[in-house]
Amino acid sequence: MPETSETIEPLIFVIFGASGDLAKRKLIPAIYDLYKRKYLPKKFAVLGVSRSKLDDNSFREQVLFENEFLELDSDSDVLAGEFRDRLFYQPIDTNSVEDYALVKERLEELDETFQTSGNVMFYLSTPPVLYDKIPKFLAHYGLNRHDGSYRRLVIEKPFGTDLASAKALNKSLKQYFDEEDIYRIDHYLGKETVQNLLVTRFANGVFEPLWNRNYIHHVEITNAEPIGVGSRGGYYDTSGALRDMLQNHLMQVVAHVAMEPPISPDAVAIRNEKTKLFQSLRPIAESDVSKYSIRGQYTASMMRGEPVKGYREELGVPDDSKTETYAALKFFIDNWRWSGVPFYARTGKRLPTKVTEVCITFNKPPQTLFRRQEEVLHSEHNQLIIRIQPDEGVLLSFGMKVPGDGFKVKNVGMDFHYSDLADNDVPEAYERLLLDCMRGDATLYAHGDSVEYTWEFVEPILNAWQHDSSIPIYGYPAGTWGPEIADDLIESEHEWRSPCRRLTDDTSYCEL
Amino acid sequence: MPETSETIEPLIFVIFGASGDLAKRKLIPAIYDLYKRKYLPKKFAVLGVSRSKLDDNSFREQVLFENEFLELDSDSDVLAGEFRDRLFYQPIDTNSVEDYALVKERLEELDETFQTSGNVMFYLSTPPVLYDKIPKFLAHYGLNRHDGSYRRLVIEKPFGTDLASAKALNKSLKQYFDEEDIYRIDHYLGKETVQNLLVTRFANGVFEPLWNRNYIHHVEITNAEPIGVGSRGGYYDTSGALRDMLQNHLMQVVAHVAMEPPISPDAVAIRNEKTKLFQSLRPIAESDVSKYSIRGQYTASMMRGEPVKGYREELGVPDDSKTETYAALKFFIDNWRWSGVPFYARTGKRLPTKVTEVCITFNKPPQTLFRRQEEVLHSEHNQLIIRIQPDEGVLLSFGMKVPGDGFKVKNVGMDFHYSDLADNDVPEAYERLLLDCMRGDATLYAHGDSVEYTWEFVEPILNAWQHDSSIPIYGYPAGTWGPEIADDLIESEHEWRSPCRRLTDDTSYCEL
Repeated sequence: MPETSETIEPLIFVIFGASGDLAKRKLIPAIYDLYKRKYLPKKFAVLGVSRSKLDDNSFREQVLFENEFLELDSDSDVLAGEFRDRLFYQPIDTNSVEDYALVKERLEELDETFQTSGNVMFYLSTPPVLYDKIPKFLAHYGLNRHDGSYRRLVIEKPFGTDLASAKALNKSLKQYFDEEDIYRIDHYLGKETVQNLLVTRFANGVFEPLWNRNYIHHVEITNAEPIGVGSRGGYYDTSGALRDMLQNHLMQVVAHVAMEPPISPDAVAIRNEKTKLFQSLRPIAESDVSKYSIRGQYTASMMRGEPVKGYREELGVPDDSKTETYAALKFFIDNWRWSGVPFYARTGKRLPTKVTEVCITFNKPPQTLFRRQEEVLHSEHNQLIIRIQPDEGVLLSFGMKVPGDGFKVKNVGMDFHYSDLADNDVPEAYERLLLDCMRGDATLYAHGDSVEYTWEFVEPILNAWQHDSSIPIYGYPAGTWGPEIADDLIESEHEWRSPCRRLTDDTSYCEL
Repeated sequence: MPETSETIEPLIFVIFGASGDLAKRKLIPAIYDLYKRKYLPKKFAVLGVSRSKLDDNSFREQVLFENEFLELDSDSDVLAGEFRDRLFYQPIDTNSVEDYALVKERLEELDETFQTSGNVMFYLSTPPVLYDKIPKFLAHYGLNRHDGSYRRLVIEKPFGTDLASAKALNKSLKQYFDEEDIYRIDHYLGKETVQNLLVTRFANGVFEPLWNRNYIHHVEITNAEPIGVGSRGGYYDTSGALRDMLQNHLMQVVAHVAMEPPISPDAVAIRNEKTKLFQSLRPIAESDVSKYSIRGQYTASMMRGEPVKGYREELGVPDDSKTETYAALKFFIDNWRWSGVPFYARTGKRLPTKVTEVCITFNKPPQTLFRRQEEVLHSEHNQLIIRIQPDEGVLLSFGMKVPGDGFKVKNVGMDFHYSDLADNDVPEAYERLLLDCMRGDATLYAHGDSVEYTWEFVEPILNAWQHDSSIPIYGYPAGTWGPEIADDLIESEHEWRSPCRRLTDDTSYCEL
């Protein structure tokens, strides 16, 4: 991240679930990196809270010195030593309100030691069942609000498992924290390439005028992972692809692709436009679910020469599981800009490659000129592909004249790679998000309303898939692009783009 | 060129000026290449006509075996031998009508030998003074028309030296040949990349909608040559940059950039649209010439470490010459599509690099979103650069988000190079043009009306430059981008693009 002149106010960063996987993999490394790069104030401390019986020292060893996800520079022992002295740990029974007195006590001590002016960020990296308990128990000791200083609450995904649970959670949180102090993490929003969607759209004279129903034929959003559910089968089977990726991450990407220009780039303006966009989603009736969606489950196959299990053979997954590992949706946005333009979103595990991208297919020009020559009848649609990950960048596919007689047209590509930017120090999503929260900038966090609207949108699909046994769940061999029938979702003469790991169209790069 | 199923009718190809430079450099090599690639019919012969006292054999030696511009494959002696037997030569005094009886006689012989069905293409590669004489003398012997077969006339540039001479020449030619049998060469029209302008515009859903006054801020067309006038100083001083490049080649490029979509890709439809376009050029009054044009002359300087002469020191150029070696124009096209969009065209010798390109600068989007952040105020215009030569291709310059805080925008480029096309056998312009003429396809030739309209357009500038001594001719050191004052032609906050030899913006590629 480039230098900033902003000063971050003093604070204590409290991690609930501090002995867990996310803290070790993402949170502590992100905080350490921010510290190393001098983004953090001098008056700063981290308090880990969890059930594990650790003390300050064993916590420090575990998350700092024995953490394989954190790279200590060999020449920065001093720095790591300094950072170490800001790490603290408090074991509690997170289900027991009495134990939160210990948290209160510890916060008072640290506030005194580090002069943190009473500012606290509570980060909930715990099982979702604790998301409403912890705020309530904090409130019991008056830790949720503090005169003249801030108390912010950061909540990890998943935010609810359906509309009712999301509403209940919002309601519960808002009893103890104001909406402006609730930061719902969607780490996709921390990605540079997702934010860049707004710049691509709104800062370019060649794209802005084309970004509407007059020029765009359809929009595809694809998230693909080659891995299966691994050891998370038990958890995954209670969730599925729609809840795990589509309702949250992909719908946030949709919002960036489709929202109206906000009146300014600040959090409130952007949240408002997203809310409007989600409100404009055309509801899919339960009775139409089979027309607008496809679900699938990967089956045993070979990938890159290795045999891989089918989903139902994975550890923790029932033999008769109906949980989808692939979901594809067709939907419409009923507003002036997008009227009649189909959007397609799909996500799946055990697909051929790892990729998240947006593909905009433009209308063909009228082509009076080229229609009359038999051999050039088949000119292609132009496409703009915006890569979220990996090989972040932009690819424009357009027609050029084939050398020689007449006007034969061939589609060619030109591409830009983020890695070509001289200044390509793309910050890790968690670093960006934590820093923004410390600044009180919620632009890249999901608003409570947005979360409810996207649950509302997918709710009929969840219901139909659960209750309507006539809707098939299609098997697809691991390593393929999902059930073949998903092609039928797309308009007649079109098909899903088959992206490769590399942005360029050259199929030699494809992993499969 | 890709294979064609079309059959070329039998013909005799007559070159007037056959012992001259163009025949040796371009025409014979092009014909030989077409022959080698089996485009030519079996019933085919070439008759060279000129003043030089050669016979068939010495002509064959000169243009085939001793021609450094023609590559004979070592394994194609047989082929060259076969081709040799199709080459003939007839010396005549081209100014003397009686001598054309010899041409007639020779044509009759060759028609009988090669069974060419009476078809003849007359190619005038002579000094322009002969352009009206030769057709008249051919007509004297009835060689200009022939029942049931074609007689076509191909005319090299320059087509006139001003409006009056162009009109006179058109009138004279049309006495003896029909307009549809007159092929005026503008070898720029034979270039793939000029033809590709139509495909870029009319076959692409991302470009077609933007191609008008609503989205385009201004258009630049640049032709630059690093060389000086060399040994052609005497001739060049009677012509100048405006006549030599701008009235013909660059105005044809303008027509491809700006014309309305033709109703079909055939010659008549395209010529009609070009004519309409040229008719829409807003006339520049003689009194406004200094406001809309800049002329310059290169002065002695160093280029790439070598001293180079100024124009007035070149062989054959008078010390007080007022002939421009650089010309820049600003002009408008008064039609619905282009109302209010300034066009800029410039051409010059002894400029920093060899390049011909079109640069489209698009309007900025409204930018409400990014305006409020101080640091991002300066986002750039998007530009589409279409390279005619060299490094043929397309470059799109657009804004991306700089990684990090906020929405800082940086312009980046993505490019397509013709050389990346798998099938990049780009035919040489002369081959393409000769073949088209044999087929009777005049799409890539200039129409008589077009030529007159472009002369009409530049006439006031020629006049003012000749007669108004108050209009300065600016010196510019050889190796610079022309007189600095030419920047004042361009709208306030803009400047001419400084292209490099390579399409990419990386200035390390720049030759100077």
